[in-house]
Amino acid sequence: MKRIAVVLSGSGFLDGAEITEAVSVLIHLDRRGLSASCFAPDIPQSSVVNHATHKPGVGSRNVLEESARIARGKIAPLATLNAADFDALVFPGGFGAAKNLCDFAAKGPDCSVQSDVARSLREFHAAKKPIGLCCIAPVLAARVLGTASGGPGCTLTIGTDPGTAAALSKMGASNVDHRVTEAHVDAKNLIVSTPAYMCESGPHGVFTGIGALVDELARLLGVR
Amino acid sequence: MKRIAVVLSGSGFLDGAEITEAVSVLIHLDRRGLSASCFAPDIPQSSVVNHATHKPGVGSRNVLEESARIARGKIAPLATLNAADFDALVFPGGFGAAKNLCDFAAKGPDCSVQSDVARSLREFHAAKKPIGLCCIAPVLAARVLGTASGGPGCTLTIGTDPGTAAALSKMGASNVDHRVTEAHVDAKNLIVSTPAYMCESGPHGVFTGIGALVDELARLLGVR
Repeated sequence: MKRIAVVLSGSGFLDGAEITEAVSVLIHLDRRGLSASCFAPDIPQSSVVNHATHKPGVGSRNVLEESARIARGKIAPLATLNAADFDALVFPGGFGAAKNLCDFAAKGPDCSVQSDVARSLREFHAAKKPIGLCCIAPVLAARVLGTASGGPGCTLTIGTDPGTAAALSKMGASNVDHRVTEAHVDAKNLIVSTPAYMCESGPHGVFTGIGALVDELARLLGVR
Repeated sequence: MKRIAVVLSGSGFLDGAEITEAVSVLIHLDRRGLSASCFAPDIPQSSVVNHATHKPGVGSRNVLEESARIARGKIAPLATLNAADFDALVFPGGFGAAKNLCDFAAKGPDCSVQSDVARSLREFHAAKKPIGLCCIAPVLAARVLGTASGGPGCTLTIGTDPGTAAALSKMGASNVDHRVTEAHVDAKNLIVSTPAYMCESGPHGVFTGIGALVDELARLLGVR
């Protein structure tokens, strides 16, 4: 059975992983008979947002502890992730990907990527193991593997948003427009992406696009 | 378009709504073209659990604010729910249903049900509008509509767990054994239930069973 590492960034789209995207990844991996293991960095969230008011929330929260809510407690620190133990790597989206896994939300194309996130992306890419990215998470691959960072560059989709597409270009990657129900495959780099909530969509559209992403990952892994 | 009220109980299976179940409800309603509106009681959680350690967490959390993470901020206080504005009512499961929407987790069949939860169940039932219940949430209907509370009684499924089935009996309702991928229909009372994580299952089994529940609700609503 193929083993897939899923990297979460909290729980809630304004300060963590987008919940529908994360759950859709886990459902579709299970549907395809792919074994999912969840990871998250054991770090404080960069912010806490009250999702009822969209205003700053009180207190601080830990990315690993909040991610564990989505993972039903079965989760490990991202620092322990070893690419040799897994066949593919998947990142759901949400502001957590742009605020906790890197600081793209604040710094755009000049962002820094959290060290274990960057290490994981480099290790899976170097080992020619597929990487899946949803919503805003493609900025992570653009920053780590883009030509501006000395990488090979890659093609990704963040939907059709011109500002984010321009940021990908500055990092030395490029956007290919796609709809929410579609996935984009960079066959050379074995990177699959889908726009998810970067598009205006209800949850079933997001679920369908993530299904397409998982199907492409399965195909790259040789799973029927 | 039919309008469905979805009642959440927090976000995280140990102290709130089971996230995969809640998301599955919202995806399947969207798949069937049913319009979902989320509600939650604006009350403190009865507990906060660190989902990474399964030990008590720090601080207090509000059921409405945490539920808003699943609902992407589109949520209203359960006190404002009027059955006249909706066609059906759905409760995902998770310990939140047994700890925040009632106190079944502590008191079993002698539990009390939160006032707006009880009112909503009575209003939808009296108006002959369908009610959907996942996982442990059937205990809410058993307590409010069971013969022990002066109600008509009803048939439900919580899977095959003998202890919970016995508790349903004491409340004047009855369990019908079902697998995770199945839904049970009480045609007389227009109540549909599915075991979800009351069964040992991966996320795709839970998603499939909740799909069956939503399909049965759609059928009761005359939606093709």
